[in-house]
Amino acid sequence: MPEPTIEDNVSDLTRISRQLRKETGWHGYDISLSCLRKLDTTLRESGFKITVSIGKHKNGYKLLNIEQGDTTNLHYGVAVDVGTTTVVAQLVEMNTGRIMGVTGAPNPQASYGEDVISRIIYACNKNGLEELHHVIIQDINRLIEELISEKNISHDDIIAMVAAGNTTMSHLLLGLMPCSIRLEPYVPVADIYPQISAKEIGIKINPDAIIEVLPSVASYVGGDIVAGVLACGISESSEITGLIDIGTNGEIAIGNNEWLVCCSASAGPAFEGGGTRCGMRATKGAINEIRISDGKIDYKTIGNAKPRGLCGSGLIDCIYELVKNKIIRPDGKFERDNKDERFAIVDDIPQYTLVPKEKSGTKEPIVITEMDIDNLMKSKGAVFAAMKSLADYIGISFDQIEKLYVAGGFGNYLNIEKAIGIGLLPDMPREKIEFVGNTSLAGARISLLSEEALEKAFIISRAMTNIELSVYQPFMDEFVAALFLPHTNKELFPSVKY
Amino acid sequence: MPEPTIEDNVSDLTRISRQLRKETGWHGYDISLSCLRKLDTTLRESGFKITVSIGKHKNGYKLLNIEQGDTTNLHYGVAVDVGTTTVVAQLVEMNTGRIMGVTGAPNPQASYGEDVISRIIYACNKNGLEELHHVIIQDINRLIEELISEKNISHDDIIAMVAAGNTTMSHLLLGLMPCSIRLEPYVPVADIYPQISAKEIGIKINPDAIIEVLPSVASYVGGDIVAGVLACGISESSEITGLIDIGTNGEIAIGNNEWLVCCSASAGPAFEGGGTRCGMRATKGAINEIRISDGKIDYKTIGNAKPRGLCGSGLIDCIYELVKNKIIRPDGKFERDNKDERFAIVDDIPQYTLVPKEKSGTKEPIVITEMDIDNLMKSKGAVFAAMKSLADYIGISFDQIEKLYVAGGFGNYLNIEKAIGIGLLPDMPREKIEFVGNTSLAGARISLLSEEALEKAFIISRAMTNIELSVYQPFMDEFVAALFLPHTNKELFPSVKY
Repeated sequence: MPEPTIEDNVSDLTRISRQLRKETGWHGYDISLSCLRKLDTTLRESGFKITVSIGKHKNGYKLLNIEQGDTTNLHYGVAVDVGTTTVVAQLVEMNTGRIMGVTGAPNPQASYGEDVISRIIYACNKNGLEELHHVIIQDINRLIEELISEKNISHDDIIAMVAAGNTTMSHLLLGLMPCSIRLEPYVPVADIYPQISAKEIGIKINPDAIIEVLPSVASYVGGDIVAGVLACGISESSEITGLIDIGTNGEIAIGNNEWLVCCSASAGPAFEGGGTRCGMRATKGAINEIRISDGKIDYKTIGNAKPRGLCGSGLIDCIYELVKNKIIRPDGKFERDNKDERFAIVDDIPQYTLVPKEKSGTKEPIVITEMDIDNLMKSKGAVFAAMKSLADYIGISFDQIEKLYVAGGFGNYLNIEKAIGIGLLPDMPREKIEFVGNTSLAGARISLLSEEALEKAFIISRAMTNIELSVYQPFMDEFVAALFLPHTNKELFPSVKY
Repeated sequence: MPEPTIEDNVSDLTRISRQLRKETGWHGYDISLSCLRKLDTTLRESGFKITVSIGKHKNGYKLLNIEQGDTTNLHYGVAVDVGTTTVVAQLVEMNTGRIMGVTGAPNPQASYGEDVISRIIYACNKNGLEELHHVIIQDINRLIEELISEKNISHDDIIAMVAAGNTTMSHLLLGLMPCSIRLEPYVPVADIYPQISAKEIGIKINPDAIIEVLPSVASYVGGDIVAGVLACGISESSEITGLIDIGTNGEIAIGNNEWLVCCSASAGPAFEGGGTRCGMRATKGAINEIRISDGKIDYKTIGNAKPRGLCGSGLIDCIYELVKNKIIRPDGKFERDNKDERFAIVDDIPQYTLVPKEKSGTKEPIVITEMDIDNLMKSKGAVFAAMKSLADYIGISFDQIEKLYVAGGFGNYLNIEKAIGIGLLPDMPREKIEFVGNTSLAGARISLLSEEALEKAFIISRAMTNIELSVYQPFMDEFVAALFLPHTNKELFPSVKY
């Protein structure tokens, strides 16, 4: 910028504003106080050569950061998927969109309750909300710390964050009281969340960085599914497209560029490695592929490490292989007359050893119990029943769905064939089904990098019609019918043979 | 509002937003985080009967506070005039505009330097800015405390504040570095200040209350004169109107609805009771009127209390009476052959006793010294010279000014006749001159109560052309010419006879 002279001695802020108008067409004076406070020094030490970061607010733009020299390529953003069981954060270069790193950790709130309902109950106790709010903020701060360590990136360089999570997670992230979500008539405090600055909730990035929490649709349909619909472009296409996001909450959306409906069903933490004896997140050492043939077990682990447990995709494979090899029956119970030494009944619980302790990375055998299978049956049953109920509600058959995206924190792998085989996914032509990984995170990242996308997320959240399954009687019937491998109604799974 | 049902279970925020759209036409979701955090409780404890406070932001509206029941008449705002020497705060009922109280105190920054230049120098030392920022915030908090005490008003009930001050005071209030204001080319960090929330600078009212600092025009023409132009409606009328705001800085604006010019000149603290032996602010016990005839002195004090000193209007009267009674000469020096026992030379300084110690509220005599008179001569000379220079610069004579408003912290009284008599104000027809009190405070209050007025203040600040007197040679000549009672050029004061 030209330096001030006695003939041109407008204020520093006006000078910047004038220059910005020349270069970007934007004209305004909205600026964060902390930024304004260091303006004098920044301008004069740099000889009026600066880089300005501008944030988009709901109603306009705001100068967020002003730095000496050209720092265009040194600005970062964080996309966060705040899952009930797992929290994943991604560091992104704002100028290029390049992903600089991604990391995840169990949601530390899990120790206060595995599912959203138990979290809500905890939050509604004295100081419960503060506690849950505090631990998730700390957790995100740790993930950010991990992402920037060894990268020579300072906290101040991170100028934006977008988080996506289900409605309860979004409430806890912002410290909003979630109590009414649980009680009829299931009303969240907010579904559109205010834009806040990082310092307001103690996220350790640039204190004035804008934090957006993607909007929810209803008490049990959150910003995560909105992010998913955004990431999969469902609302852009004229074809009927479905999205199943398999997490602790199974969330399903079906629609096209004219309509969007969605629903959710509690699936439990099994697909994210919780609630089963040897379950684990999809991280190093997790078995994510299994094949059993002639009593021999082949498996692959993430990072080719020694096996430490089973992640969601490993569990799906495992159940499929067990039923295919007739080790378990279609009702999920073990065949009791199994002579295989891998099979045993310990403390009255039938179990099957996948990895003996001498080959295990934890020195403990990796087993799957009948109880684990029972949990997974309920999980997959809930997801399928939700999908089926939603399709019935809209009045379409699975045939009419042109594309089905399957999302979830399964790492990089999900065997679609086997997921259909256990009745988790509908028996559709395989080429119509695509595993797309963590769409909650992807949607958050897209919204981080583009105002237009963020605006679209808002529109999606307003356009989506939520079907409250908890008061939709056919859902319970569908759920019970789905507690079988692949399903009590075999006609729904014509291609599944075992 | 209607309570939620299972058929109508939109989020609490959406419910409020929907209701607001019905009642006000405004539709939006922008809300402060703290407000959102207590929403659940507020709604359910009140049975969904609430009062919503909405604040206007630069680019839209924001829900600031949501309270149980009908609290429409229980919302307050604070208007603050942050003067170099004196800080005045006024408590206003937002719904009715009723003034609930007003109080003032010396600006505690004065102990770090009497005028803006010495404050700037102090601020530019290590920690100086933090210190000056801190003491003014503390001072305003004390004034607010005083205003609400015994009124059963809580800090949270105060939902807005507007402050007006000169550019340096505004910078110090916001913690902005004022260093460049003092150095050529005299560039402030900002002239439009960002809207902030109370918690950002530690003002103890509702933490989310919006604080507006009225915009400045240039380094030495601040929001106080913008407030004055607004309060006097100068930019509304087609008549050429002038405003002289007499404070530590004398600020002058002349214009109409087509053009506005302004300038400022350092007048020193004399008019606010500083820099003179027995000067004091216009508070209880201050002599604000004096008459001397036949060696007898009559005076009035504020609150009819025992006299404690001289405020600005008392000083003006005093000088006028002294010169009229030939106790001092037109050059401001005492006639040395005065036999009156009130006259004395103490420590080489000629002085005149106005109130003997036995009648004084301080037990000390109230005197005026030749040095005091000298200071006041410089003060009035600077103000008049600025006014004259500005008129000459525009190319108008005083005759063409249809109305001249005189503002300043003189309490409720200023004797226009005597102010002309000493050459402070131009010798215009008396009916054209009106003393209007503290217009900085009045403008702040108007902006507090009306968005439209706030917007007007912004427009005024952009429309006003500042004449930098410090680089305008004729000003210095005018100043020297004005160091006489009433003026070296008697033709400028045809009606003044003594």
